Amino acid sequence: MKKLLPLIAISMFSVATVKAQEEKIDLEMTKKIRQEGLQKSKVMDIAFNLTDVNGPRLQGSPGYMKAANYAKNKLSEWGLEDAKLEAWGEFGKGWELKKSYIAMTEPYYRPLIAYPKTWTAGTKGKLKSAEILLIDETDTLGLENYRGKLKDKVILLYKNDKIQPSFKPDATRYTDEELEKMASASATATTQPDTAFRSMMQAMRRTNMLSTKTKDMAKKEGALALLSMSARGKDGTLFVSGGGSYKANEPEGLLDIMLTAEDYLSLCRLTKAGIPVKLELDVKTKFYTEDLRGYNVLAEIKGTDPKLKEEVVMLGAHLDSWQSATGATDNAAGSAVMMEAVRILKTLNVQPRRTIRIALWSGEEQGLWGSRNYVKNHLADANDSKKSNAEGEKVAAYFNVDNGTGKIRGIYLQGNEACRPIFTKWFEPFHDLGAKTVTIRNTGGTDHLSFVGVGIPGFQFIQDEIEYNTRTHHTNMDSYDHLQPEDLKQAATIVASFVYNAAMRDEKLPRKK
Amino acid sequence: MKKLLPLIAISMFSVATVKAQEEKIDLEMTKKIRQEGLQKSKVMDIAFNLTDVNGPRLQGSPGYMKAANYAKNKLSEWGLEDAKLEAWGEFGKGWELKKSYIAMTEPYYRPLIAYPKTWTAGTKGKLKSAEILLIDETDTLGLENYRGKLKDKVILLYKNDKIQPSFKPDATRYTDEELEKMASASATATTQPDTAFRSMMQAMRRTNMLSTKTKDMAKKEGALALLSMSARGKDGTLFVSGGGSYKANEPEGLLDIMLTAEDYLSLCRLTKAGIPVKLELDVKTKFYTEDLRGYNVLAEIKGTDPKLKEEVVMLGAHLDSWQSATGATDNAAGSAVMMEAVRILKTLNVQPRRTIRIALWSGEEQGLWGSRNYVKNHLADANDSKKSNAEGEKVAAYFNVDNGTGKIRGIYLQGNEACRPIFTKWFEPFHDLGAKTVTIRNTGGTDHLSFVGVGIPGFQFIQDEIEYNTRTHHTNMDSYDHLQPEDLKQAATIVASFVYNAAMRDEKLPRKK
Repeated sequence: MKKLLPLIAISMFSVATVKAQEEKIDLEMTKKIRQEGLQKSKVMDIAFNLTDVNGPRLQGSPGYMKAANYAKNKLSEWGLEDAKLEAWGEFGKGWELKKSYIAMTEPYYRPLIAYPKTWTAGTKGKLKSAEILLIDETDTLGLENYRGKLKDKVILLYKNDKIQPSFKPDATRYTDEELEKMASASATATTQPDTAFRSMMQAMRRTNMLSTKTKDMAKKEGALALLSMSARGKDGTLFVSGGGSYKANEPEGLLDIMLTAEDYLSLCRLTKAGIPVKLELDVKTKFYTEDLRGYNVLAEIKGTDPKLKEEVVMLGAHLDSWQSATGATDNAAGSAVMMEAVRILKTLNVQPRRTIRIALWSGEEQGLWGSRNYVKNHLADANDSKKSNAEGEKVAAYFNVDNGTGKIRGIYLQGNEACRPIFTKWFEPFHDLGAKTVTIRNTGGTDHLSFVGVGIPGFQFIQDEIEYNTRTHHTNMDSYDHLQPEDLKQAATIVASFVYNAAMRDEKLPRKK
Repeated sequence: MKKLLPLIAISMFSVATVKAQEEKIDLEMTKKIRQEGLQKSKVMDIAFNLTDVNGPRLQGSPGYMKAANYAKNKLSEWGLEDAKLEAWGEFGKGWELKKSYIAMTEPYYRPLIAYPKTWTAGTKGKLKSAEILLIDETDTLGLENYRGKLKDKVILLYKNDKIQPSFKPDATRYTDEELEKMASASATATTQPDTAFRSMMQAMRRTNMLSTKTKDMAKKEGALALLSMSARGKDGTLFVSGGGSYKANEPEGLLDIMLTAEDYLSLCRLTKAGIPVKLELDVKTKFYTEDLRGYNVLAEIKGTDPKLKEEVVMLGAHLDSWQSATGATDNAAGSAVMMEAVRILKTLNVQPRRTIRIALWSGEEQGLWGSRNYVKNHLADANDSKKSNAEGEKVAAYFNVDNGTGKIRGIYLQGNEACRPIFTKWFEPFHDLGAKTVTIRNTGGTDHLSFVGVGIPGFQFIQDEIEYNTRTHHTNMDSYDHLQPEDLKQAATIVASFVYNAAMRDEKLPRKK
């Protein structure tokens, strides 16, 4: 690629120069935003409240509601208007972990690093000497050999994986070369790491038939629990998400416990060698069924231009998280960045021409529920869910942050080429902070898709990975200390500037043709 | 350094060529050793038994004794003679973790990754709602403000550390350049990573006055427990070693719990912000006082040359470990390598001229107790502990492995230049396996020092780091899955060859002048 770079650079520069001349930015305001955002940031204080102080923010859990109320109150306190929790429809049951003690007691005592999966049941008291049943099969046919043997057992599916040492760094930032490749990508080349990763995860889920069948049989026969191995993660880091159903009319899922790969493989080796393994388990989980609805947090800085104030620039991030940690990089980071962005603007007492609306979504982890329903309830055509209605037409743009704690390096156009010269210009005051790449590529997996789905220009920023896929995304290590303060300050500053620019320019951002 | 390399290479080559001509090796036997060690290895099976099957092997604990007996029986089974456990003198109390449940219950529920330090007491039952007392001081003077307030509290010393993401790989192997630098080092340049690391640890301990004073006060006033932060480690990995005294006449240490940096810092932020934090604790530990002695494991392959069979080539590794995992890389790895080395030799039915004696040491982690006392009891001059006695004079060499799971890349001469051409020759059949570097440097911190201390040629091999200092050394992740099978096979093969060569050559290895 290196040989191509000069050509690309020249061509990009020409485009930017020609078209960017049309785009005006208020450099005085940009300077103020930078000062407030980089010198007087509150982003880590917001993040502290959303993580350490609050705890996990699983959709429908008391933790989520606590965080949503904190956010609403904080937004009001800063002077935003109409701050509220808005129900978007029925989600299902809430769930919370109330106690989790899981240890091996034979052949010797060993505490295990283990987390019950969400929406699974507890042990109904302490199980002092639970026996493991090893299922050593590679397909569902073999399962028949175990029929009738699962009652009162803890079920372990044999695995023989090899944990590899990390000869590559856990943490990365985009290199100049990678960014240049993104900038020069064509509209057809839309693959990018996040999409690839999610496809891989989906494929894994599909091929996990054996595990599902085992679970069904275990539940039917009255097994005590099921053990699962974190497919990624090592060294004490494990990835844990859902294990049971949150639907109102479905029964509680069988207790399903995610172990570190090290612990899981050790139990496999021991039981496979015929050595009796016993566990002590005491797990309490609580389901919440009183209010099955999901809630988003919304607040506004009202527009001041009589002609434009009915139009809206939206910024959002999902506030919900998984539960084995406090969802710091997924997505307290994005929520804190968006809250900080409007705090910056409110502190500077901006008078935007258009209305600025912040949204903190819920149920993102279960399928973008909060944003999808918000769009459905407010912005989509009643007869054609792929088009926006009149209210939707008034949304000038939607900006999303949900790629971890890394600083902003650029933005995904989602195929909306007409926005390239605009964003190229908007990034100009932030080149010194490492942000300038505008790529035609799509990125998936989060809430901007709900807006893009009805034709509203929705964007997600390019962020440095840091340790997102190796250590924090959906893990027990997604906690405050894995946030990068300087990165989050930079991100909030840039988002504030983008939102302000979008609220001030004469036209809404161009719609994709 | 790069510019110097050609010169060094030439000079090394000349030295090796001239002197190595005098050194004979049995290439037919080397080939057999390679076949047995690389193709029919049992090293991972031995390691499995020492780790997964056995559990932690803390000095004086039932786990250590179980492993020692396993080793003794296995050595006998392979046909070694005089396999035995040999008491080396009084050590102190044994200790074992019997239960460990540690969770945060307020402001919300969170399981903590936490391990009681060795030789500390338990909680004497479940503590359902233990309050944290934060001590926010930077020197021992400030501690006075807390006098009288520690009773029934869990003590937390405020820290505000920043966890850094890993932009460097956790795992490394020596580069050619690093090895060449070691090979060309002069006798005065003896610094090497392990020594530097241990000095750093010692310095940390010395400056940890505040922590010690707090502990004293906590114990005196009747605090429930003390929390400690792992000085290294993150992402669920924590380093945990001793916290109380093992001496027979000293009282049980106050419960001292090592937390991950993430959990510790989170508790600090919460309590510092004035948010009441409560913990649930249920820790049982057991002290063993029936037999205070320490035991090494010994076994022999008898020498066959009437003139030389009274002479001994020794190989050893410490078998004891810390307790938050199963001590896989420190030092089941070394123990398995040494056991496998003698298994290889015995399987090949070698008839060594000198006697080969394997020793698996205990109490290494508390200060090389097993090997020091072995040398004192058998090999040291009764009137001058820095000289060997008649029996010591008969030890032709001592080889040690205790640098983790990495393959052998060379050997430390410990300043014994006369051995350079010998080892250079001995490594020749193993260049293809990455082993050839002979460095004049010293390496410290383990059992070869006990032999070097009385003038016996004692050596420790250079091994690739892999994740020793980042993830496994003294951590809760020092478990079977962090062992590298191919590396251990290589190491056992080379050790078997070195030991065989030392047992067959006409002269004992040259003593240092």
